[in-house]
Amino acid sequence: MITAGIVGATGYTGVELLRLLSSHSHVEVNCVTSRELAGTAVPRHFPNLRGRLDLEFSAPEAPALGECDVIFFATPHAVAMKSAAQFLAGGARVIDLSADFRIRDIDCWEQWYGTAHECPDLVAEAVYGLPEVNRELIRDARLIAVPGCYPTAIQLALLPLLENRLVDESRLIADAKSGVSGAGRKAAAEYLLCEASESISAYAVAGHRHHPEIVQGLETAVGGPVTLTFVPHLTPMIRGILATCYAPVRDPDACSAEMLQHAFERRFAGEPFVQVLPQGELPATREVRGSNVCEISVNYIEKSEMAVVLAAEDNLVKGAAGQAIQCMNIMFGWEESRGLEGIGLLP
Amino acid sequence: MITAGIVGATGYTGVELLRLLSSHSHVEVNCVTSRELAGTAVPRHFPNLRGRLDLEFSAPEAPALGECDVIFFATPHAVAMKSAAQFLAGGARVIDLSADFRIRDIDCWEQWYGTAHECPDLVAEAVYGLPEVNRELIRDARLIAVPGCYPTAIQLALLPLLENRLVDESRLIADAKSGVSGAGRKAAAEYLLCEASESISAYAVAGHRHHPEIVQGLETAVGGPVTLTFVPHLTPMIRGILATCYAPVRDPDACSAEMLQHAFERRFAGEPFVQVLPQGELPATREVRGSNVCEISVNYIEKSEMAVVLAAEDNLVKGAAGQAIQCMNIMFGWEESRGLEGIGLLP
Amino acid sequence: MITAGIVGATGYTGVELLRLLSSHSHVEVNCVTSRELAGTAVPRHFPNLRGRLDLEFSAPEAPALGECDVIFFATPHAVAMKSAAQFLAGGARVIDLSADFRIRDIDCWEQWYGTAHECPDLVAEAVYGLPEVNRELIRDARLIAVPGCYPTAIQLALLPLLENRLVDESRLIADAKSGVSGAGRKAAAEYLLCEASESISAYAVAGHRHHPEIVQGLETAVGGPVTLTFVPHLTPMIRGILATCYAPVRDPDACSAEMLQHAFERRFAGEPFVQVLPQGELPATREVRGSNVCEISVNYIEKSEMAVVLAAEDNLVKGAAGQAIQCMNIMFGWEESRGLEGIGLLP
Amino acid sequence: MITAGIVGATGYTGVELLRLLSSHSHVEVNCVTSRELAGTAVPRHFPNLRGRLDLEFSAPEAPALGECDVIFFATPHAVAMKSAAQFLAGGARVIDLSADFRIRDIDCWEQWYGTAHECPDLVAEAVYGLPEVNRELIRDARLIAVPGCYPTAIQLALLPLLENRLVDESRLIADAKSGVSGAGRKAAAEYLLCEASESISAYAVAGHRHHPEIVQGLETAVGGPVTLTFVPHLTPMIRGILATCYAPVRDPDACSAEMLQHAFERRFAGEPFVQVLPQGELPATREVRGSNVCEISVNYIEKSEMAVVLAAEDNLVKGAAGQAIQCMNIMFGWEESRGLEGIGLLP
Repeated sequence: MITAGIVGATGYTGVELLRLLSSHSHVEVNCVTSRELAGTAVPRHFPNLRGRLDLEFSAPEAPALGECDVIFFATPHAVAMKSAAQFLAGGARVIDLSADFRIRDIDCWEQWYGTAHECPDLVAEAVYGLPEVNRELIRDARLIAVPGCYPTAIQLALLPLLENRLVDESRLIADAKSGVSGAGRKAAAEYLLCEASESISAYAVAGHRHHPEIVQGLETAVGGPVTLTFVPHLTPMIRGILATCYAPVRDPDACSAEMLQHAFERRFAGEPFVQVLPQGELPATREVRGSNVCEISVNYIEKSEMAVVLAAEDNLVKGAAGQAIQCMNIMFGWEESRGLEGIGLLP
Repeated sequence: MITAGIVGATGYTGVELLRLLSSHSHVEVNCVTSRELAGTAVPRHFPNLRGRLDLEFSAPEAPALGECDVIFFATPHAVAMKSAAQFLAGGARVIDLSADFRIRDIDCWEQWYGTAHECPDLVAEAVYGLPEVNRELIRDARLIAVPGCYPTAIQLALLPLLENRLVDESRLIADAKSGVSGAGRKAAAEYLLCEASESISAYAVAGHRHHPEIVQGLETAVGGPVTLTFVPHLTPMIRGILATCYAPVRDPDACSAEMLQHAFERRFAGEPFVQVLPQGELPATREVRGSNVCEISVNYIEKSEMAVVLAAEDNLVKGAAGQAIQCMNIMFGWEESRGLEGIGLLP
Repeated sequence: MITAGIVGATGYTGVELLRLLSSHSHVEVNCVTSRELAGTAVPRHFPNLRGRLDLEFSAPEAPALGECDVIFFATPHAVAMKSAAQFLAGGARVIDLSADFRIRDIDCWEQWYGTAHECPDLVAEAVYGLPEVNRELIRDARLIAVPGCYPTAIQLALLPLLENRLVDESRLIADAKSGVSGAGRKAAAEYLLCEASESISAYAVAGHRHHPEIVQGLETAVGGPVTLTFVPHLTPMIRGILATCYAPVRDPDACSAEMLQHAFERRFAGEPFVQVLPQGELPATREVRGSNVCEISVNYIEKSEMAVVLAAEDNLVKGAAGQAIQCMNIMFGWEESRGLEGIGLLP
Repeated sequence: MITAGIVGATGYTGVELLRLLSSHSHVEVNCVTSRELAGTAVPRHFPNLRGRLDLEFSAPEAPALGECDVIFFATPHAVAMKSAAQFLAGGARVIDLSADFRIRDIDCWEQWYGTAHECPDLVAEAVYGLPEVNRELIRDARLIAVPGCYPTAIQLALLPLLENRLVDESRLIADAKSGVSGAGRKAAAEYLLCEASESISAYAVAGHRHHPEIVQGLETAVGGPVTLTFVPHLTPMIRGILATCYAPVRDPDACSAEMLQHAFERRFAGEPFVQVLPQGELPATREVRGSNVCEISVNYIEKSEMAVVLAAEDNLVKGAAGQAIQCMNIMFGWEESRGLEGIGLLP
């Protein structure tokens, strides 16, 4: 049994961490911080936890936090970078769900996040927490940068194609659709039910913060430059991301639906949380609601010589809190699926 | 470890039983029947079970069914009454989620369900599976009639008032709002997204099958006649029931919000799945989505001398599959919450 | 052709007024104010008006406002009371969609709205703009207090019963369900899609500002005291109110479904915007989405001697902007339905 | 004033035609057919028409139909082809909203629609009813094939790029998201609220009937072959299509956001129902709900040398019934926007 603390757990990533950790047999959450809600019972803020978590929010300076074995940051960007070092120095492992340690190029990070990075040294040390890529590195890491929600789905959809040099890496497209919880719990007019329901729209067409993160992952896989057009869409639902990825195949004569299917099945064989669907079946975000699974469907459009790969995940689970726990399980040597056995809620 | 079979598991109650039983440490599901889908892999029909349940639908006559320790009926009405006796004779326990054994007055049942009852003897034996009322009887029962979704919420909301003679039992009103999953998975135009979303409407104002079931429970508590006006509403959401119950208090001079609150807290003290909210807090169905909890809020409107009790539940869990499993746990002497620990999915 | 101005048109009532007035053949909107958005093109804020309204938001002090023939207030409460007198003095008619002039008892208003009323004289002069009750008074009024959304539906549902002394006015219940647009366009966390969709909840059970307004209307009809229990609910949809009203009949022996039906048909004969549904048909809010119609269904539950009346309206149209325009049409001697001919959007 | 008949008006396209035609000053609907509902009052089936349309459904053989000046087919495919010739022979104009006359290549049509075409002669005569392309031909046409919903949005999004040879026509991608009403009013399980809400999924990735129709339009514009990858998605909302189109620019050195913007503004100058949004603004389907407008946003992603064009429409209006009426207005020499002045319902 270890002890866990969560910094900044008042949003959707926070409540999802709490939901999952409260059922984790090896973890006791004993500190949850929020400057604004300090002193309030956590279940008062998150009523689904009534009777399941007997804890109050603490101020971020709470000493109990420093005694935790693992610290999760569920904060906006530019918070974890200020205090991660101190927790690491105290001997804790740190799992950051924000963007602070995801991008290795500090200039690039500073440009997208609009502030100076205060802890570039730890960026170099941090391990990008995508178990399907970095499982071994995660095992020994002190500091994990949990991938963003879009980057998780899009990398899982494209990596097998790129690693096997099956497609033209200079002409990739990811058309991604996210539920509104991806925007967090902030009270902005555009995410009101009356604005966001019964409508779909694209946003950040000119550029999105997850773009450099995705490209970094894809370029690492290829060992060279990758060009990706990425358009995210706000979809009228609470949870879920569907990424529809388009990649022109490199050698149409050698390509077939079966060949692509095998490449994906091989790549993800044994992965506990990636399900390559049988050929011809298509994913839906409802199939993974509340679960840590990412469903992938591989299609080949012969006429346009195009691989179309669909990846569906719950943005708050495999796209955030679930993946963080998967990393924790690896770091502590536990079964990778511990605490993540929950089956998706359908309907 | 016991073995369980589910008859007719192709609808929403069925998939919810499968979701919950698949995570239950003491149960192995080894037979799931559907005449129509016999031979199809269950996860092909319910994709949230992919990788979690390796079973095909069997024909209803499958011998494996007869060997199960417990049989769940997730069928439309008038199915369980035809074969429950045979399974009981074979030594199994039977938990019927349909209406076949809920109403003790056979004439009344036949009138509402429009067919002759083929097994009146078992109606007399069956225990109405509301643990908050019949826990001891459930322990020793061979046959459980799991309450309907509306009856669960409305009885839990009204019982403490009636048992304590606090209200006028001749003037009760239950205005209930249900998500669309209450109608099942049948392909009827009125439940299409384009018909049922972005709208609310009442239905069955002239009379609903759950009315006699609710009244039977309330009259048992009172030991005399009860008059209830019950109006169900179709609400544009997937899961959840909110029952808003109105009961004129018998003795306004002696009544207060605190007194009502205490009556409810006393009545449900120790209940694992009833949460009486602190005075002034109101429930929302989202707070219990996917969990077996029923949240109850008691209010007293002094000016109109009216108790207003709100009960929120997930109609597929506490209103169906979860309650069935709660009964099973009691029947087999296990911890009542086993397999029902899942925390509600919020948001 | 007259000119119209709208004060504070940045919310949902405002955009609905603009949608309807832009199609009104006798009205030209030539001033729309918003302190915050002054200088911004109106269609930039409300994109559905692109190409249909060539106007910028003005500051509230804009001289153009003073020159309008009619001024609509689509402001929060406590704004219209500060400047209505000045516009009336300038010769304009004023139609206030806020609560400032609805409640004749100033003490009561001040208690519910938490501020001193700055213009009690005009409260006495203002006509409550429910055409089905006050058509003749509206014709000659200078100042209209447009009813609230809940009060419109609930009064239309109960008035025929009370005016005809058919029910016990001391035991009325209105269980009302509103879409989220009833809360306006303010960015509060509770109205985010992730909080308000897929859930239903009651609110303001202890007391709601519309309660005294409804009671005032009902008591005027009865000529004596009325006791009403009113519970509003937040429903996961954008538009629409469904009020389910319960009223115990006074003389069950003389009562029947037909008798109640006739009372409603008589009461609303010739009303352009009240549709009494044929006996046995039930309304749904989707049937009146975007239209000024209020659908009413009358039911008699013999066993409980209860009249159950359902009223469905679009809260932004018959519950706000449409009713305001209906009043304007009456005030200016035009056909009452001018500009309100739009048929509801279904699906 | 002309008379109009609608064949097969029991679905969503039918009710939308009725909503719009009922407000059209030059048209009287005097025959609406449905074999199944013959004898039923139309508003009984479509309650939004209560009090606005006093007509019963007739059998398809109704003589009144033959006397109409214009006949709309709102039928499934393979119906209009059986009787269009007879109505044309009788002197009526025919506007077919189904797919029967859209595709000029009969073999291709038969392959996609799985039946023999019974009226190839009329395919040759029919005019494809996209006013932005065929306005002059529509004026003199006897028979109009109204474009499909996806083809309308996607052609409007891509035509300016192709007509001006700005992009590589061999590498086009259209990722389209449709509300559930696109599937019609048929009672299929996959379109139930419980299946289709709170989820997004792709479908028909391997091939969709609208693909050849879109390609036909694009190839006509280019005068040569076009390769398009088209992936439609089912989106959890009632109405609306958003098409996100990707086209690699032919000459990146000569390309810029401004240049693309001008190409679109020039192309659609004066078009009553195409709104090219100002640079940097992005469309949302809610902005055109219930209106005949198609909103278009042109974006240039310099890094990937990609034009990204977004088109939003209401699939039942500009994507079906509204476009049909726009064609009718042109055919009869009326103002093109008559009966289509309705402003979108927002929120």
